[in-house]
Amino acid sequence: MAELRKDPIVDRWVVIAPERADRPNALVRPQPERDGEVCPFCPGNERMTPPEVLVHQNGGPGWSVRVVPNRYPALRTEVVMSRTGHGLFDSMAGVGAHEVVIETSEHKRSLGDLPAAQIESVLLAWQERMIDLSRDVRLKALFAFRNQGGPAGATLFHSHSQLVALPFVPPALKEELRGARHHFEEKERCIFCDIVAQELRDKERVVLETEGMVALSPYAARSPFETWLLPREHRSSFESASGQELREAADALRTLLRKIDVALEQPAYNLLLHTMPLREAQNDWYHWHLELKPVLTLQAGFEWASGCYINPTPPEEAAGFLRQTEV
Amino acid sequence: MAELRKDPIVDRWVVIAPERADRPNALVRPQPERDGEVCPFCPGNERMTPPEVLVHQNGGPGWSVRVVPNRYPALRTEVVMSRTGHGLFDSMAGVGAHEVVIETSEHKRSLGDLPAAQIESVLLAWQERMIDLSRDVRLKALFAFRNQGGPAGATLFHSHSQLVALPFVPPALKEELRGARHHFEEKERCIFCDIVAQELRDKERVVLETEGMVALSPYAARSPFETWLLPREHRSSFESASGQELREAADALRTLLRKIDVALEQPAYNLLLHTMPLREAQNDWYHWHLELKPVLTLQAGFEWASGCYINPTPPEEAAGFLRQTEV
Repeated sequence: MAELRKDPIVDRWVVIAPERADRPNALVRPQPERDGEVCPFCPGNERMTPPEVLVHQNGGPGWSVRVVPNRYPALRTEVVMSRTGHGLFDSMAGVGAHEVVIETSEHKRSLGDLPAAQIESVLLAWQERMIDLSRDVRLKALFAFRNQGGPAGATLFHSHSQLVALPFVPPALKEELRGARHHFEEKERCIFCDIVAQELRDKERVVLETEGMVALSPYAARSPFETWLLPREHRSSFESASGQELREAADALRTLLRKIDVALEQPAYNLLLHTMPLREAQNDWYHWHLELKPVLTLQAGFEWASGCYINPTPPEEAAGFLRQTEV
Repeated sequence: MAELRKDPIVDRWVVIAPERADRPNALVRPQPERDGEVCPFCPGNERMTPPEVLVHQNGGPGWSVRVVPNRYPALRTEVVMSRTGHGLFDSMAGVGAHEVVIETSEHKRSLGDLPAAQIESVLLAWQERMIDLSRDVRLKALFAFRNQGGPAGATLFHSHSQLVALPFVPPALKEELRGARHHFEEKERCIFCDIVAQELRDKERVVLETEGMVALSPYAARSPFETWLLPREHRSSFESASGQELREAADALRTLLRKIDVALEQPAYNLLLHTMPLREAQNDWYHWHLELKPVLTLQAGFEWASGCYINPTPPEEAAGFLRQTEV
């Protein structure tokens, strides 16, 4: 059973998940696109996955989006919450949720290839699962992410994203919350709104603007073509985004993914959702957003040793290139 | 010219280093071991690198360790320090140092393959460069790291490590300093000394013990076979380690690398040195150490989105396996 362990020096939880080592590739670099193998995410093979927790049909026969528990979950809800100390060390039971969102019934289509309505259905599935999981008060935060392509960590080719709910607020989100709250205490403004406003004035790091959304290359982008997608209107939690907001997010995400696919020739990438911890009401200082990071460079000793990043592509150049990319 | 940019939300500096994109592989995964190419680190090809800043000879003809500025430096010392604000955003000139330590004149030998005296000479070169660079008061912290093998980020096969000095204390070190100081405020003890003491009592995560050093699998190891190597006696800064301490560190590092090479069949790995910021005297609460992380799993969306890690190999198992590995 998975166990959560906290580093005694820094604020870092690690999931020690020995059962995942049953995956034959747990200790080697994932190899996706194993041709000839039967795809567990294709229609007809539904019994190769655990039973679904959510299905969208979108009017057709069969399903169009399917959410199932991860077959190799890092964390599970069917675990009794418990915390233990071992001298200096703290651990807790691996309580959480780890689900897979199968984004289309079509084996060969990537997310950026799908019609906007289908992408909207994926985002809606994230939101529906988030609302459902928020009923479990042991779970403190949820994030969604997708690994596109082997170098980004995907182990199956068929388009899918993952949802992870954790019994604590993870460090990457905690840091953002802390920074955003600090800015609000000083300025009484949302820092993400401030960034959007400054970028829309400057223009040079804006990738695309729609009525509801803005995509931009962040000023201190960690890697080439890192791009953030934010709602233009202040909204703290993805959990409470309206249907109209999800539709606009899906439209903009589709355009962004198509630009990335054209400009960088269908790169491997990671996409993630950062949003307020579960069950926290709308506030004036945090702003949900998506972050997209093509995997074009390798993180190595420098990044690991320092926690800093070296980015050879100025975000202004990346944004200019993506702006000009026609899709 | 490289520029340092600070993320406006979280405490994260990024080196925007467009000149590094001249490297043909800057935007693709590094490919080491390009056979047939002339190695710039081999004897006879010294003029393919910038002029050396340090040489060790160890009695033989020619050099045994050579330190040269990185040909594609992320940061340079020949830059005037300046800080600029752009609305919400902060930047500073890319002041720093980025040097390469060529660890042996022999093309084919990896660090773990070298005699202990040669490894000691490498650690001494790190220390000598650290002392020299500490004279530049603009530089606040230095770390050493090495990328062994392509998946770990190495772009040249010939055994080398890198030294980076930064004009700020980087987040990964700042976090450790904060945690260690916090522990000291509560307990008036060094947390690293406490960890070593507890691990030596428990035994199950100890990889090796020598008179001067302890290697252990940390309780919350982020990835399979992550191993820390610490001096047994309290010592805050590598800068002030004695010759005897460097000798003991080199001996233990050699045994550890050989165990890793045998147990995991010469894996790619990152190795790094964490030590006090430059020019900071010995204190009672921080403890220099080396961290070794074999590259066996891929960091993907989960790690990036959360700042947490999933590790399929319990550190107790990794330590047991390495303890039993004969070298």
